[in-house]
Amino acid sequence: MRENTLRSKWKSGETTLGLWLSGTDPLTARKLAGSGADYVCIDMQHGTADYSTALAMLMAMEGQPAIPIVRVPWNEPGIIGRMLDAGAMGVIVPMVNTVAQAQVAVAACHYPPAGSRSNGPIVAADALGPDYGTEADNEIICIPMIETVEGVANVEAIAAVPGIAAFYVGPSDLSRSLGIPPNLEQMDERFLEAASKIIAAANANGVTPGVHSTPAMSAARIEMGFQMVTVTSDVQAAQIYATSSISGVRAGKSGASVGGY
Amino acid sequence: MRENTLRSKWKSGETTLGLWLSGTDPLTARKLAGSGADYVCIDMQHGTADYSTALAMLMAMEGQPAIPIVRVPWNEPGIIGRMLDAGAMGVIVPMVNTVAQAQVAVAACHYPPAGSRSNGPIVAADALGPDYGTEADNEIICIPMIETVEGVANVEAIAAVPGIAAFYVGPSDLSRSLGIPPNLEQMDERFLEAASKIIAAANANGVTPGVHSTPAMSAARIEMGFQMVTVTSDVQAAQIYATSSISGVRAGKSGASVGGY
Amino acid sequence: MRENTLRSKWKSGETTLGLWLSGTDPLTARKLAGSGADYVCIDMQHGTADYSTALAMLMAMEGQPAIPIVRVPWNEPGIIGRMLDAGAMGVIVPMVNTVAQAQVAVAACHYPPAGSRSNGPIVAADALGPDYGTEADNEIICIPMIETVEGVANVEAIAAVPGIAAFYVGPSDLSRSLGIPPNLEQMDERFLEAASKIIAAANANGVTPGVHSTPAMSAARIEMGFQMVTVTSDVQAAQIYATSSISGVRAGKSGASVGGY
Amino acid sequence: MRENTLRSKWKSGETTLGLWLSGTDPLTARKLAGSGADYVCIDMQHGTADYSTALAMLMAMEGQPAIPIVRVPWNEPGIIGRMLDAGAMGVIVPMVNTVAQAQVAVAACHYPPAGSRSNGPIVAADALGPDYGTEADNEIICIPMIETVEGVANVEAIAAVPGIAAFYVGPSDLSRSLGIPPNLEQMDERFLEAASKIIAAANANGVTPGVHSTPAMSAARIEMGFQMVTVTSDVQAAQIYATSSISGVRAGKSGASVGGY
Amino acid sequence: MRENTLRSKWKSGETTLGLWLSGTDPLTARKLAGSGADYVCIDMQHGTADYSTALAMLMAMEGQPAIPIVRVPWNEPGIIGRMLDAGAMGVIVPMVNTVAQAQVAVAACHYPPAGSRSNGPIVAADALGPDYGTEADNEIICIPMIETVEGVANVEAIAAVPGIAAFYVGPSDLSRSLGIPPNLEQMDERFLEAASKIIAAANANGVTPGVHSTPAMSAARIEMGFQMVTVTSDVQAAQIYATSSISGVRAGKSGASVGGY
Amino acid sequence: MRENTLRSKWKSGETTLGLWLSGTDPLTARKLAGSGADYVCIDMQHGTADYSTALAMLMAMEGQPAIPIVRVPWNEPGIIGRMLDAGAMGVIVPMVNTVAQAQVAVAACHYPPAGSRSNGPIVAADALGPDYGTEADNEIICIPMIETVEGVANVEAIAAVPGIAAFYVGPSDLSRSLGIPPNLEQMDERFLEAASKIIAAANANGVTPGVHSTPAMSAARIEMGFQMVTVTSDVQAAQIYATSSISGVRAGKSGASVGGY
Repeated sequence: MRENTLRSKWKSGETTLGLWLSGTDPLTARKLAGSGADYVCIDMQHGTADYSTALAMLMAMEGQPAIPIVRVPWNEPGIIGRMLDAGAMGVIVPMVNTVAQAQVAVAACHYPPAGSRSNGPIVAADALGPDYGTEADNEIICIPMIETVEGVANVEAIAAVPGIAAFYVGPSDLSRSLGIPPNLEQMDERFLEAASKIIAAANANGVTPGVHSTPAMSAARIEMGFQMVTVTSDVQAAQIYATSSISGVRAGKSGASVGGY
Repeated sequence: MRENTLRSKWKSGETTLGLWLSGTDPLTARKLAGSGADYVCIDMQHGTADYSTALAMLMAMEGQPAIPIVRVPWNEPGIIGRMLDAGAMGVIVPMVNTVAQAQVAVAACHYPPAGSRSNGPIVAADALGPDYGTEADNEIICIPMIETVEGVANVEAIAAVPGIAAFYVGPSDLSRSLGIPPNLEQMDERFLEAASKIIAAANANGVTPGVHSTPAMSAARIEMGFQMVTVTSDVQAAQIYATSSISGVRAGKSGASVGGY
Repeated sequence: MRENTLRSKWKSGETTLGLWLSGTDPLTARKLAGSGADYVCIDMQHGTADYSTALAMLMAMEGQPAIPIVRVPWNEPGIIGRMLDAGAMGVIVPMVNTVAQAQVAVAACHYPPAGSRSNGPIVAADALGPDYGTEADNEIICIPMIETVEGVANVEAIAAVPGIAAFYVGPSDLSRSLGIPPNLEQMDERFLEAASKIIAAANANGVTPGVHSTPAMSAARIEMGFQMVTVTSDVQAAQIYATSSISGVRAGKSGASVGGY
Repeated sequence: MRENTLRSKWKSGETTLGLWLSGTDPLTARKLAGSGADYVCIDMQHGTADYSTALAMLMAMEGQPAIPIVRVPWNEPGIIGRMLDAGAMGVIVPMVNTVAQAQVAVAACHYPPAGSRSNGPIVAADALGPDYGTEADNEIICIPMIETVEGVANVEAIAAVPGIAAFYVGPSDLSRSLGIPPNLEQMDERFLEAASKIIAAANANGVTPGVHSTPAMSAARIEMGFQMVTVTSDVQAAQIYATSSISGVRAGKSGASVGGY
Repeated sequence: MRENTLRSKWKSGETTLGLWLSGTDPLTARKLAGSGADYVCIDMQHGTADYSTALAMLMAMEGQPAIPIVRVPWNEPGIIGRMLDAGAMGVIVPMVNTVAQAQVAVAACHYPPAGSRSNGPIVAADALGPDYGTEADNEIICIPMIETVEGVANVEAIAAVPGIAAFYVGPSDLSRSLGIPPNLEQMDERFLEAASKIIAAANANGVTPGVHSTPAMSAARIEMGFQMVTVTSDVQAAQIYATSSISGVRAGKSGASVGGY
Repeated sequence: MRENTLRSKWKSGETTLGLWLSGTDPLTARKLAGSGADYVCIDMQHGTADYSTALAMLMAMEGQPAIPIVRVPWNEPGIIGRMLDAGAMGVIVPMVNTVAQAQVAVAACHYPPAGSRSNGPIVAADALGPDYGTEADNEIICIPMIETVEGVANVEAIAAVPGIAAFYVGPSDLSRSLGIPPNLEQMDERFLEAASKIIAAANANGVTPGVHSTPAMSAARIEMGFQMVTVTSDVQAAQIYATSSISGVRAGKSGASVGGY
């Protein structure tokens, strides 16, 4: 089975960087999966992909170096199982606030006896290797989101649930839950304090702390201790570069050459 | 009917900048149509959109400032008519090498007596205005591509065909036809000479000279006399910005803030 | 942010009329959103749209006067959040029978502290306004369906749950639950009695009473006190008008002129 | 093979009425194919269906009484063959202006020796009968559109081309070609004269004269001699009925009962 | 309403054979529904169909002799209702381990008072008959999967839940739960013992025992007492026959004639 | 660039076997591309794939050993270019009856100066290698179909057109053109004579003779001298194996084990 390089990188203390897919274009997905990131995540919660479009994107990304993961729309075993069967090597699960919710997420990601995932990796066995059935539990990663006051309150106990590979912090949701205006680049003290608590609980339990970020904020997040940092998204990247290219050319400036044909 | 601002800008001598859509994502299309460009072009020749995906993208771009145009896969009246009915305000037509081919393209873009377009703007009348039927011929633009040695040889005669709004040069195809390796940023003398001839023929006939370009090359293309310059594409922009963001963060540099939430 | 005109109309005691989308066609959706109705609802429970088709329909309806809402397939936060992020200005939630179920629905429609909706209005912020993040909780409406004996029994308590904008009655389901054959035009005493109870509970709590109806029945429903009345659907309208046009022409009668071209 | 009842009805002098599909919804297509019409036509020229959506609509209409036909986007053998293979029992071919163009259309609809259609009725053989290979040429109908001044000038010669079952007049296109504003309900003398000439040529050659119409105009078209009259479309029907239902209910009037559930 | 022939066959003690649809192709679905099987099942759990593709497949299979059923991704009333509304005549529900879970599944498949299914068979009433509303509860079948140690432990109590037509055993999942490597053709004693217990509980309660199988294993499963046996799937069948045809031709052997054209 | 192994195999005199894709399922496409065949062909003429579905299938087949080719719907440069840009390594072009038509097909498959293909391998450059631009003309193969009396009459001249890699015979179409009932397994003398003439012309010009076949007929076709033989299709394979599995199990026979899980 394809090795989930995130696991070994995290084990060795390496910081991993990711890209986000909010759109539905398989070609763009493939390009981003070859853009130097450690992982690429299809967002089925706030992005616009559904099962069929996500499957096409996963197929398009096969063979690219970035590890493909998926953020599912909700902590529901049906969709978690479907995305793993489609070849995702991990799932980010929104709004995990309690130990019980974390256990549901973990169970959905692992076969018995570790969990209760149903057997049938119809695409994954082709995409990731014929030994998927025996190796999946070693390579597939479950990544609950800690993004509410309740989740932060329970974070130590959640971190101790066996089978959690990483935590993923959504700064906007955690801000809202803390009573602060949502901001991907949140630096409010209350947020920083909650983040510290999450990172500490993660580190104490062999869980990798992750966070949704921006190009401007990623260095700061890494310095805070996050080891899994999503830097930008397909839609955002296209928009930022397109906007700056247009305004740059209008201003008489020259952008980066893209050479070739 | 919505005014085709490209026409007035071109009439006033203004240089217009555009963005290209090689992918299929409606949300990205919309974002790019609001990114400061004068036009956005869905590429149905070398991009991955077909009729249904292009229609969804055109609908998603309605209300955005950029003028939506489409590059059709070939000089064929059926698909030209369909894309105009879907709300495109212009079509770029590949491989127009002769006067006869130019006349076919022009006829497909205009209602009788100017052309032979069939009546039925099922989406366009909603999207662009109830007076579409009488105004379309004043606003819809036909843009043949001059991208072969044969096309360059015939360019003065083609430019004189009534109903051509602009020429669009594909540097890679024209390079190949000239026996030069394809290069979007072509600066070979033979290419420059051909381009000059196209620009001259265009200017002499009230036709706007346009070109497919890159951020790095656009200033040079404008200086050469091109008034319609496509600066970058959705897929290229996403890939470039994603790549540079990842490598920037790895190098400890900070990208542009995207603020908000 | 776009104003949800249903709220102000309801506050002023105005009766609002709606159209239903059981099919999947974006063009038809747009046409119906401009047909004089106060709202148009995409039915993801008994209609045939899923997330991707509903998103295309929502995008096609932007700019039309009717307020776009969605009936989700079930009371599940994942799909409620996705449809709101896609630009729906309200959700109708099936089978809300208890206070607890109503609280789940309300929480899914509102950001903290009012609820637990996750932040990420990827389409909605474009479609409805850049201040969506701060204004959404004032404009987005949550509309539980009261359509079972259990729901009617609990209706006063449900009406008192903060954050409910309207109730929506499904006459067929409520009929079945009451032991009466399902009938959109139900006038059985037991149904009328249950409806009265729902309307009274709604009125007592500042909740707008709504109902699924037909052209023939709408006047009666308005007289009963319903303020939100769905008059017909895309599929039903097409079928009725097509059938009557064909039979009318066969009978030598003339239909309404549609003029134009 | 399923009998093409249009042929026998036309032979017996019966007037046949049709419905048009401008949208893409399979469920609506099925409903209209059971609404009393003699035929239903998917419009791939000015409607929004492409091959994949049209195939889904054709499959959804199987088993319904109306004969399914398709208007192809252009007179091109590739798409004509594909739609016949998909189960269409006839094709309407736009802009047939000359004998040569008519021969191209006829050839695309018939197997050798009558034509040059390629063999491979992958869906049609299932949908229409296992003897499709030998019977198709007897049941499939080719319907060129006569909708330009040139077409009218050549109509007698076109009518004499063997293998044409009917002519289909597009009043808007023919009006434009005649220099009159497009109008589906055109009654200008010049149009009527051209229509008469088409009808006469058709009748003299065993070809059925057909026309695109509206509910208001159909009686007049039948009186003119048209035997194949399209009365309304899915999108138009939905919009008209929805609009009149909303305005009727607002005005306190009651629409037709739709009963049941 | 169309008779669910599975019910009468099961009542008469007949063994029924089925085919599985793991892919998304409507044409293949139709072909398999006419291939001699008693039922065909669209797999929305481990197969690749989602709602929209499954709807297209259900429409394509109408009129074919096999009874169309669906395996839903999870025991969730929203998707169960949607698939029944789309014309499925039964649902296989994964991972039913307790009486309470069985009651949820049964309730989702039946209208009140037997269950709590919501009314609105938008496709089913067309596909299966206008008396669907009153007859559905007699024809629609609910088939929980018994595929865990917990499910086996509770199987007698689950079998006694009114409204269960059959049990469906997933050998791979049950194997995993028993601590045995997953194997569709499992013959381990522990599996056989659990299967016996399921069959006995089914038979004692008028429930039909069913199992997922392979061509090689089906005879053995029938001998064990299973009355509902899925023999192979679309994807597996295509792959096996294609592989053996290629290797057969390479080896100079001749395959079965497919005749005709 | 990925090597087109068909070329070297043909050069060495090896017989190559292929599989046909008449359906639209990406997963099945991938499985068949790994089933031992030398090539897999997506049929866009008589199969049900269009551009978007074919692109998804091509992406799903990447990395599998079979060379992916496409049969385009017609000899039209637009669609030929699109499919090559999508990653097809060859195109089968229907109904090539004359030298001029063969030249059109060849030109569409090669860049200048060999042809007039337009530059823009948006998917192909990713899928097949970064040197695609310079290597494509060496690896992409153009395969005209010789399937009419006219084509056979011109076959020597067509074979001499530079840039043709293989001929592909459609036995059903050639039969019809010869006045024989269509039959994939045609063995009528007139057909055999025509086939001999095609094979001879091919062999005399370094063109590989190919044919559409069946498992039963392939040995005979190879013996006739065909070097490129399509053995079966996805839909046919699924149907044959499913039918025989069901009937085999009904008859108490045991099929091949599929093992695993």
